[in-house]
Amino acid sequence: MRLRNKPWAREFIESHPEVIIPNPEEWKGKWNEIFGNDKPIHIEVGTGKGQFITGMAQANPDINYIGIEMYTSVIVSALEKVLDADSPSNLRLLNVDGSQLEKYFQKNDVERIYLNFSDPWPKNRHAKRRLTHEGFLKIYESIFIDNGEIHFKTDNRGLFEFSLVSMSQYGMLLKDVSLDLHANEPEDNIRTEYEEKFSSKGQPIYRLEAQFVKK
Amino acid sequence: MRLRNKPWAREFIESHPEVIIPNPEEWKGKWNEIFGNDKPIHIEVGTGKGQFITGMAQANPDINYIGIEMYTSVIVSALEKVLDADSPSNLRLLNVDGSQLEKYFQKNDVERIYLNFSDPWPKNRHAKRRLTHEGFLKIYESIFIDNGEIHFKTDNRGLFEFSLVSMSQYGMLLKDVSLDLHANEPEDNIRTEYEEKFSSKGQPIYRLEAQFVKK
Repeated sequence: MRLRNKPWAREFIESHPEVIIPNPEEWKGKWNEIFGNDKPIHIEVGTGKGQFITGMAQANPDINYIGIEMYTSVIVSALEKVLDADSPSNLRLLNVDGSQLEKYFQKNDVERIYLNFSDPWPKNRHAKRRLTHEGFLKIYESIFIDNGEIHFKTDNRGLFEFSLVSMSQYGMLLKDVSLDLHANEPEDNIRTEYEEKFSSKGQPIYRLEAQFVKK
Repeated sequence: MRLRNKPWAREFIESHPEVIIPNPEEWKGKWNEIFGNDKPIHIEVGTGKGQFITGMAQANPDINYIGIEMYTSVIVSALEKVLDADSPSNLRLLNVDGSQLEKYFQKNDVERIYLNFSDPWPKNRHAKRRLTHEGFLKIYESIFIDNGEIHFKTDNRGLFEFSLVSMSQYGMLLKDVSLDLHANEPEDNIRTEYEEKFSSKGQPIYRLEAQFVKK
């Protein structure tokens, strides 16, 4: 994603603390207070411009969503999208680094994580940075309820191959796999901006659902 | 595969009992006597015309191979190929139904099974016939050494998606996955006849290695 310098972004974000939560580390273990209910929490790491998480929040009122995006210049687009959607009460954003989830969440805070078109980090020496690497799976497990799930979409073949093996070796169970999501797109699939742009090029979108198993 | 009636096939097969083992049920538990050594045994179910299993036997002298093909009119082509290769001492064929492996093998007889371009049985009501269905995984496990492996190639997306989930849910671990084998073909990949014909069409070949876990 192209990052433009947006000097007004910080101020815009700070003027909407009802959407982009300030000091999220203070809500660790008590996110239900933010939402005012005990509905399950699903998070997305790498929310980008917010089309996916906003669509999910609108389609699924019984789930609370938290979209996480580290780039300030990008999350402002997500903020605009959320405001345009009248700020669904079951949706919040965090402008933090999604590779450090353990700072903001603790065991049983989260039921599910969405990873959409994450950075593939194609070089072997960068494998540890891939969001489906064992190191990150450990973090997800540490903030999940038992049997929490990862729902993962990507157009990157190498990352998907890596992720299938990584999750399996970690002991996770695959619940569903699609190797060409748009060939037979489920009615409830909500496309990301990237997915929409990409789908016209004819390369397949890969998708999986995997579940942690209580040890 | 097109099946032609070959009235001479039965006689041809019977004239080569050193390659196509007669009465294979009699060798259950003692296949090492056939090969005259205790090297690990790898089998292929659906050997077809035999290019894969013959190539594997020639490339890997420290493994014993058994190719299984139920169609008499097809296995004669495999027999011809084996004879042309001077009947490698580490290779045998069985002209039996590969869906009934438990008739011919028992626990610890087999280290690995190759499934290449198996019938996809695309209709849901036929799912049980897919060679990666739970029912077959149970049979493989029952004739395998501990931690035995399935190596599976197919061009059929639906079958591959099904197989990933089926094996994972069974408790198997994925060791390796390729979603476009020929994009980066391993040097030791031995192509089947079907794979060779298919690779020119530009659709991907899927491949996985999965391992049973001792319970």
